[in-house]
Amino acid sequence: MTYFEQHKADFLEGLKAFLRIPSISTLPEHKPDIRRAAGFCKDELLGAGMTSAELIESDSGGNPLVYAEWLGAPGKPTILFYGHYDVQPADPLDEWKSPPFEPEVRNDNIYARGAVDDKGQVYIQIKAVEALLKTTGKLPVNVKFLLEGEEETGGEHIEAYVKSKPPRLKADAVVVCDTEMFAPEMPSICIGLRGLVYYELAVQGADHDLHSGVYGGAAPNPMMAIAEIVTALKDRDGRILVPGFYDRVVPPAEKERAAWARLPFDEKEYTEKEMGAKELTGEPGVPLFERVWARPTLEVHGIRGGFTGEGAKTVIPARAVAKISTRLVGDQNVEESIAQMQAAVKAATPRGVTAELRVLSAGAPSLTNPDNPYIHAAADALKEKFGKETVYIRSGGSIPIVGVFDRYLGIPSVMMGFGLPDDNLHAPNEKFHLPNFYRGIETVARYLEILGK
Amino acid sequence: MTYFEQHKADFLEGLKAFLRIPSISTLPEHKPDIRRAAGFCKDELLGAGMTSAELIESDSGGNPLVYAEWLGAPGKPTILFYGHYDVQPADPLDEWKSPPFEPEVRNDNIYARGAVDDKGQVYIQIKAVEALLKTTGKLPVNVKFLLEGEEETGGEHIEAYVKSKPPRLKADAVVVCDTEMFAPEMPSICIGLRGLVYYELAVQGADHDLHSGVYGGAAPNPMMAIAEIVTALKDRDGRILVPGFYDRVVPPAEKERAAWARLPFDEKEYTEKEMGAKELTGEPGVPLFERVWARPTLEVHGIRGGFTGEGAKTVIPARAVAKISTRLVGDQNVEESIAQMQAAVKAATPRGVTAELRVLSAGAPSLTNPDNPYIHAAADALKEKFGKETVYIRSGGSIPIVGVFDRYLGIPSVMMGFGLPDDNLHAPNEKFHLPNFYRGIETVARYLEILGK
Repeated sequence: MTYFEQHKADFLEGLKAFLRIPSISTLPEHKPDIRRAAGFCKDELLGAGMTSAELIESDSGGNPLVYAEWLGAPGKPTILFYGHYDVQPADPLDEWKSPPFEPEVRNDNIYARGAVDDKGQVYIQIKAVEALLKTTGKLPVNVKFLLEGEEETGGEHIEAYVKSKPPRLKADAVVVCDTEMFAPEMPSICIGLRGLVYYELAVQGADHDLHSGVYGGAAPNPMMAIAEIVTALKDRDGRILVPGFYDRVVPPAEKERAAWARLPFDEKEYTEKEMGAKELTGEPGVPLFERVWARPTLEVHGIRGGFTGEGAKTVIPARAVAKISTRLVGDQNVEESIAQMQAAVKAATPRGVTAELRVLSAGAPSLTNPDNPYIHAAADALKEKFGKETVYIRSGGSIPIVGVFDRYLGIPSVMMGFGLPDDNLHAPNEKFHLPNFYRGIETVARYLEILGK
Repeated sequence: MTYFEQHKADFLEGLKAFLRIPSISTLPEHKPDIRRAAGFCKDELLGAGMTSAELIESDSGGNPLVYAEWLGAPGKPTILFYGHYDVQPADPLDEWKSPPFEPEVRNDNIYARGAVDDKGQVYIQIKAVEALLKTTGKLPVNVKFLLEGEEETGGEHIEAYVKSKPPRLKADAVVVCDTEMFAPEMPSICIGLRGLVYYELAVQGADHDLHSGVYGGAAPNPMMAIAEIVTALKDRDGRILVPGFYDRVVPPAEKERAAWARLPFDEKEYTEKEMGAKELTGEPGVPLFERVWARPTLEVHGIRGGFTGEGAKTVIPARAVAKISTRLVGDQNVEESIAQMQAAVKAATPRGVTAELRVLSAGAPSLTNPDNPYIHAAADALKEKFGKETVYIRSGGSIPIVGVFDRYLGIPSVMMGFGLPDDNLHAPNEKFHLPNFYRGIETVARYLEILGK
């Protein structure tokens, strides 16, 4: 019986303890939970046998980074494990079948906020190292960990830290376990991510709420103005109307397009079962994987203001605030895209209101060349443990730090993810498939062994 | 010293007690307060000297009506006083300078939710009757009261009751004190009201919230769909694009238009001081009073769904619900307008989502011919007490019961209102100008005297 088999119950209990900490980074009231989660990681890393582990505090009120190292393999490569211990908010709470911070196992899945994004995958990295250290007393390569607590809210602390190029971060590759497999039983490495700019659009009309009977027909309505602005930014086919927005979009190479076309995909299943929708939307004539992996998008996430309670209130709100984000691809530049959005919002603002577009967070897109030994080793480890050829995919999501590692440390990111497409990331009933959790631990350990040869 | 002068302090204390009851009809949790407010009215009417007063309960869970009568003037006309004891919700609470249900007098105004709409004006009617009964022992005409507690939420109970034509409602005219004066010191009678249909537009995309990174570019976004639908219903100039919507709109007569053009009006003051806006909006070339009194409008009051909290959450919401209303004028028919809206929403719904437009409440527009003795007497009473010629105006607001009185009881409504344009109706810091409150009581008493001659 292997260490992995012997310790399945321990791995699960440890993960549950991690998931019970509501480390929501977007809500200030969870600051103490953030600190608890960081402490949990540090303790686990020391318990796993890492030589040292510590919290790196932020000078500007940010959440602590967790750094750990084991450098007992001179002459061998150095791997930097990255992950995040913070999670998304859990609302709407009433749609969860079990409470988001009381992990529950149902049908081989563990349900909790953060199960797959990213606590379960961080825990895979820690337990892989633990298994090797506990069974062999050493690691096949040098290993460092850098975990952050602001991934869901902009990642300013880690970004500033990595940009300062501290010598202790020197490594040959970053291993990121924060993505998903293309399909169950299909080992996947992600080589491309979209960038993300998250905005708040605040629109002001009158200086106080007005009665729509008395003023309707003459008063500016910020709620309506937001509708007018966002429909001016994106058409009904999903094409973004912001001038210049597509100028630096790079289409995927023919070889990559052809590989995507070979991926097993059932549109009906994807639409009706995975998404629960009646129909897909988006740019006509653009294949699905290109739409979600290699094309920019613009989404409205919510609009605050006015009256949204039960019953009827005939108010023209003085102010409304929309949450809007854009995803960026190819050579799109964050700063340039923000300037384009600012100009487009200005041009689209109807008379009678003032509109202010504020950036809450921003991260660049990234694309890795898969032809390097660190990615090849990952493909081999995955193939060995999952029993199938590894596929190279992209993700439509954003992990801004990947671009920062590339640019400031000059090292490739290996995005070896164990999530599944139906894991309800950022949604109620987030889950992690337990067989992937256990096999993930074995895969990461095997990866280090292959690199050590 | 008159009764009015002697009892100013009592009138104010009584009004404060009425305003302290948070009788919000749109919120189910305030049902007990609704009942307290109804009981308060009944007690006040009996205290004023009305022969009888009682609550008329609803068979279907609606809020009670308050009915009272004094019929000691045989051969004289009968006046039916109408008003409502329910109020709008008070949110956003943090914009109130004093708590909405703790009335506070500042600078000759009383601030509280319901101060002018409509508790203060209901109290004027009760105190006018009280003054006459206490000083002369009788009333110059027969008087009935019918007060309701659902005006802000559709008025179903009173509508059903009036439609049943109960013999006790027989009267020569209805006196409604629920409108405003055109300007301070300018006695006004309102002869036209817009109708109101209040909708909820529910849009469903996927069956659960989705991550905008993973699905953005392929998933339907109900928040965006609502923006697309409402911008298809109304253009940037305020023109409603719903086919057929203007077919039965009747323009004001040249004489009425000319009278409106003579009303004192300072657009800069109205826009910047009264509204606190930088610019008016609405149909180009249509004069302001016509835009707000004699043209239909469509407003979005709020959109529920998605993420609207602090920080960033990249969710594509499964569902979003918009609060939308239309105001109707002229011969626009409620049912026909609803059918037109349903068809327009259907045509404007983008692919990938389902949209359902549900009616929460509906009331027809109304227009009264001012050439009748009950309106003439009101104009005389107002002129006498305010010392200026009474003007005939319309209101852009909606009092659906006025159309019902007209249609089912066949009697005219006399809309003698004492509110002011800056009273913050339906908004934070609602107020009532106390000199208008006191003069209102005298005016209504004088009105009954004139009718009794």
